[in-house]
Amino acid sequence: MLFASDNVTPANPEIIEAVAAANDGNVMPYGADPISQGVRARMADLFDCAVDVHFAMTGTAANALGLASLVPRYGAVFCTALAHINTDECAAPEFFTGGAKLIDVPTQDGRLDPELLKAAIEKSMPGFVHRPEAWAVSLSQPSECGSVYSREQLDEIIDIAKHYGLLVHMDGARFANAIAATGTSAKDMVRGVDVLSFGGSKNGCMMAEALVFFDPDRSRHTPFLHKRAGMLCSKMRFVSAQIAAYLDHDLWLKNAAHANAMAQRLADGMCKLKGVRLAAPVETNMVFLVLPQVMADGLKAAGAEFYWIGDFPIPAHRFVTAWNTSEQMVDEFITTAARFSG
Amino acid sequence: MLFASDNVTPANPEIIEAVAAANDGNVMPYGADPISQGVRARMADLFDCAVDVHFAMTGTAANALGLASLVPRYGAVFCTALAHINTDECAAPEFFTGGAKLIDVPTQDGRLDPELLKAAIEKSMPGFVHRPEAWAVSLSQPSECGSVYSREQLDEIIDIAKHYGLLVHMDGARFANAIAATGTSAKDMVRGVDVLSFGGSKNGCMMAEALVFFDPDRSRHTPFLHKRAGMLCSKMRFVSAQIAAYLDHDLWLKNAAHANAMAQRLADGMCKLKGVRLAAPVETNMVFLVLPQVMADGLKAAGAEFYWIGDFPIPAHRFVTAWNTSEQMVDEFITTAARFSG
Amino acid sequence: MLFASDNVTPANPEIIEAVAAANDGNVMPYGADPISQGVRARMADLFDCAVDVHFAMTGTAANALGLASLVPRYGAVFCTALAHINTDECAAPEFFTGGAKLIDVPTQDGRLDPELLKAAIEKSMPGFVHRPEAWAVSLSQPSECGSVYSREQLDEIIDIAKHYGLLVHMDGARFANAIAATGTSAKDMVRGVDVLSFGGSKNGCMMAEALVFFDPDRSRHTPFLHKRAGMLCSKMRFVSAQIAAYLDHDLWLKNAAHANAMAQRLADGMCKLKGVRLAAPVETNMVFLVLPQVMADGLKAAGAEFYWIGDFPIPAHRFVTAWNTSEQMVDEFITTAARFSG
Amino acid sequence: MLFASDNVTPANPEIIEAVAAANDGNVMPYGADPISQGVRARMADLFDCAVDVHFAMTGTAANALGLASLVPRYGAVFCTALAHINTDECAAPEFFTGGAKLIDVPTQDGRLDPELLKAAIEKSMPGFVHRPEAWAVSLSQPSECGSVYSREQLDEIIDIAKHYGLLVHMDGARFANAIAATGTSAKDMVRGVDVLSFGGSKNGCMMAEALVFFDPDRSRHTPFLHKRAGMLCSKMRFVSAQIAAYLDHDLWLKNAAHANAMAQRLADGMCKLKGVRLAAPVETNMVFLVLPQVMADGLKAAGAEFYWIGDFPIPAHRFVTAWNTSEQMVDEFITTAARFSG
Repeated sequence: MLFASDNVTPANPEIIEAVAAANDGNVMPYGADPISQGVRARMADLFDCAVDVHFAMTGTAANALGLASLVPRYGAVFCTALAHINTDECAAPEFFTGGAKLIDVPTQDGRLDPELLKAAIEKSMPGFVHRPEAWAVSLSQPSECGSVYSREQLDEIIDIAKHYGLLVHMDGARFANAIAATGTSAKDMVRGVDVLSFGGSKNGCMMAEALVFFDPDRSRHTPFLHKRAGMLCSKMRFVSAQIAAYLDHDLWLKNAAHANAMAQRLADGMCKLKGVRLAAPVETNMVFLVLPQVMADGLKAAGAEFYWIGDFPIPAHRFVTAWNTSEQMVDEFITTAARFSG
Repeated sequence: MLFASDNVTPANPEIIEAVAAANDGNVMPYGADPISQGVRARMADLFDCAVDVHFAMTGTAANALGLASLVPRYGAVFCTALAHINTDECAAPEFFTGGAKLIDVPTQDGRLDPELLKAAIEKSMPGFVHRPEAWAVSLSQPSECGSVYSREQLDEIIDIAKHYGLLVHMDGARFANAIAATGTSAKDMVRGVDVLSFGGSKNGCMMAEALVFFDPDRSRHTPFLHKRAGMLCSKMRFVSAQIAAYLDHDLWLKNAAHANAMAQRLADGMCKLKGVRLAAPVETNMVFLVLPQVMADGLKAAGAEFYWIGDFPIPAHRFVTAWNTSEQMVDEFITTAARFSG
Repeated sequence: MLFASDNVTPANPEIIEAVAAANDGNVMPYGADPISQGVRARMADLFDCAVDVHFAMTGTAANALGLASLVPRYGAVFCTALAHINTDECAAPEFFTGGAKLIDVPTQDGRLDPELLKAAIEKSMPGFVHRPEAWAVSLSQPSECGSVYSREQLDEIIDIAKHYGLLVHMDGARFANAIAATGTSAKDMVRGVDVLSFGGSKNGCMMAEALVFFDPDRSRHTPFLHKRAGMLCSKMRFVSAQIAAYLDHDLWLKNAAHANAMAQRLADGMCKLKGVRLAAPVETNMVFLVLPQVMADGLKAAGAEFYWIGDFPIPAHRFVTAWNTSEQMVDEFITTAARFSG
Repeated sequence: MLFASDNVTPANPEIIEAVAAANDGNVMPYGADPISQGVRARMADLFDCAVDVHFAMTGTAANALGLASLVPRYGAVFCTALAHINTDECAAPEFFTGGAKLIDVPTQDGRLDPELLKAAIEKSMPGFVHRPEAWAVSLSQPSECGSVYSREQLDEIIDIAKHYGLLVHMDGARFANAIAATGTSAKDMVRGVDVLSFGGSKNGCMMAEALVFFDPDRSRHTPFLHKRAGMLCSKMRFVSAQIAAYLDHDLWLKNAAHANAMAQRLADGMCKLKGVRLAAPVETNMVFLVLPQVMADGLKAAGAEFYWIGDFPIPAHRFVTAWNTSEQMVDEFITTAARFSG
């Protein structure tokens, strides 16, 4: 009954098989191999446009490199106060950018609030050297609260960014979950986005992320920043092979759809119990529940793992499902919880 | 006939099998899993002392993190002009350290020259703020010329470092080749070293390096620096499993011994050809040959791959052998070369 | 009627005279001259303890160097959302520290709120590598709202810092105004503080700040960080001579007492006008007034200069008085305002 | 008999008077004052082209900001091994640029050698991510050996830079001495240069340098980098007033011509003594002498101050003259030396 995070999971067998299959003879190093080149071509197909793709082994590295590609050292990046880049990456964005500043905007549900975003941007007037200059907006799709921006909501945020001449980074650590939840095409989902952190590690890969640029001008500095960050694996085929298999037969979407369904099942079952309620709507693979203390304690005593998130708008217990969460595990969890229901 | 680098090679099947075997259920993330913990214990055994181990996916990241753990932002690191950290890591050490300076010392054979090292250190007097303060010496074992420091040579360099109060980093991207070449024990090889970049990627792993600290005081900042560099894989078991298999049954040493032997075979065969001579003694898995131009051209035309290294003391063609270099490939190369021998 | 900031003012004639007097023959460079050494001794007297003093030409440089001396690159510094280091230094602290993160705490009056501070610190658990590690608290005395921490309030904040093992930086850009306002001795004012930015430029100097360390351990790295920041003037006597004259005959305190009195005079006069009220109590040399729009417009039309501060708890017009603000200028301003009073 | 450096000198009385005169009432801060704006206009006149000017209080800050304006974080800057930026600025360029790398080229006389420069640049091929990318050449005019590039020599270096698409920084800490020595106009001296560190502090100012950009595209980022480096004095008039007076009535050139003449006088007198010879030609205000040890010791015992420069091509004693060096002091020195001449 491990619901602590999707990062405790194994990889899909298909991913491992692809890595094993990639282990075939000598090939050109540093991403010049055919597998890595193939992934670049497939990303261009997926997003239906020219793309530039760089690989990363962690989501933190992908995000930080993406931001470092967009903003100068004195730039300001606007994000929510709950953004992963703001709270869980140990100031990697500040490190990779050479000291740019994240300006965090309060949020109720993990999404950027258009009015608050505008107000924050307006404090950083162009050419006003006393504040870091506004350069980029970073949004997480889905957000750290599990919520998904609708296309209209994305437009609203991106229009604001463009109005002020800012670039847009999308943290898609769980991008597949957003696609699976909404049925929006990948192409539509990134309209107006300059660079996407396309996540694999949380959804079936071992350790593979792709940083996808939709405007080659934006990745002009990236190859050097990538190398000097120690991210340029000589045997890059073993990273790109994961992404290739992840895209094959829509594995990424199947994994995500399953995780999302398990989250819904968990929420549905739990909400029937007395004293349990949702702290936020379930839109992807995260469930935020307000539980009676005795139930939370009982579940932990029974071996369940999950986190208390105290700094979200509604403090709650967070449950994350994954590609390998089984119906049986969910049901067992609910049955256990029921034992502690008044 | 690919002798361009050991980074074009596949991984040992044993490594792939270990990765597949690690793909078993949910485990604690971020290196708290049993496989990663097991590797830490095995490193303590190997070096026969308490160690602190951090994993990396590239040698550049391992080196840069090691140096960033040792020196402050205003520190000076002394290394040879040919050191990989100086010439092939796109200033990653400068980036990870926050702007420390590499002071490069001329070298004849890839090893640090004790007198030149001393002279360089003495220009950075303690407390003299106009120069970066001397903090560390970095040496590559084996060196980028394929040469290996004897224990006496190491002592000489390390004594100088200690005399001036400096810390010692060993770039062991090909550490196994040095061990295999000399028969020195791992423990003896690192006597006096503060942190070792223990390489795996060039010698049979997919992408796995271990940064081994021999003094816990030196790694006090490392976990944070590691995380904010985007190197802390959530599913670290897939990195550490490679190192575990690499150590199993002395795979690392068998790989290295084989590569070294193939280099010797290549050198022996080539030196019998007219007009061919060694530019440097063959001590590990690198061979530097002065070839007639017609032979070099002919070999390339026949599909052989190798680099011209113009900035080494004796400019020469470099040939790197690896764990998967076959006797047949070496012999075929020599036979081909012979066709172009006057 | 310039009330925009204390940074538009000239220097005291005594400061200029001291600079001219310092222009006497060759002396040792880089702060080894007698004037600079004399200032160090006088700071030790003023604070009645051993101190280490480094000079700066701007307050931003002093603050950023102070923080860089206290915290590692992955450290977190806690301050108010309105702190000068957070809003008006173009991320200089992030730059000087090599990428540390300022965690901003909401504030009502410019002072750190003890409970909010505690809550913020507790999110950065020691050893929890996903967030920057808590290292320091920075407080402004007086604050950017003109408010002054009482000694009891300082104790409360410093006790929290010490409880969590954090260091304390005091931004004293207007330190003299706090001393003059409270009558607290300099020694008492810095009890528990590790490093003070002792400001001169806003209160009668040309460009001179002193960074005063109360624990030599904390300034171990400072000389190198100072030099490589380009702050080590060769002819440092011309900076330190300003501070020497500033301390002479209590010039610093006389200047500050005058500025404070002028602020009080301004507030008293204005508050008698219909529709005018204070947005915050007047404690030092800043006055925050809520004015009728017609009055604000009329004053600007009449040539008065002052800023609208929209992001303070109570948005208001800010008026800053200085050592050279005359009673006549204040009275003229009030008279002008009265013309626009309903 | 202080010949240690030109940084021990006082300022010209004219400079002090200008600073005192600038102390007149409230003016706009941060360089928006009339004096600062006037200097910008005069620099445009001096160089006969549109310029962008930023002020600095130290030469290190000017150089580092200039380089940071030209090169990205992963850039390589080519300079001589003896360049001040390489040996005497405590890695400030690395700090300000965010980790760029200085590639040092051996030199015989302080000037860049065209062939060695070309060879160094060619190791950093465009797009080759394993090395920092070639971005800029920095040359010191005059050099740290006192030598001056002729216009033909400048052309040769600048042509190489332009051939490879590199930008050019000129460290003019002693720019006036080069102008005075050659009679070349300021305009001609900077032909092909992108940014000049125009020094004042060593030649009569208290602490004032101007960073002059000859292409506005190159200073696009500079205002923010300047602010976040803590270099943006609020009362900038006190810096710019120094430069204004420095330019008035050719004070800068008179000072430099005098210093150069004193160096020539010193060299002429000393070379008549037995056992004394020049280690390098005297071209500006630095004299490098090979002295009998007994003479060097005797002079030091008599109170003379000068440095031993061990890492110059010809190790020698260095003597620096300045605007305030008197004929009497030079002659007294020579007379003293003569007492120790065999």
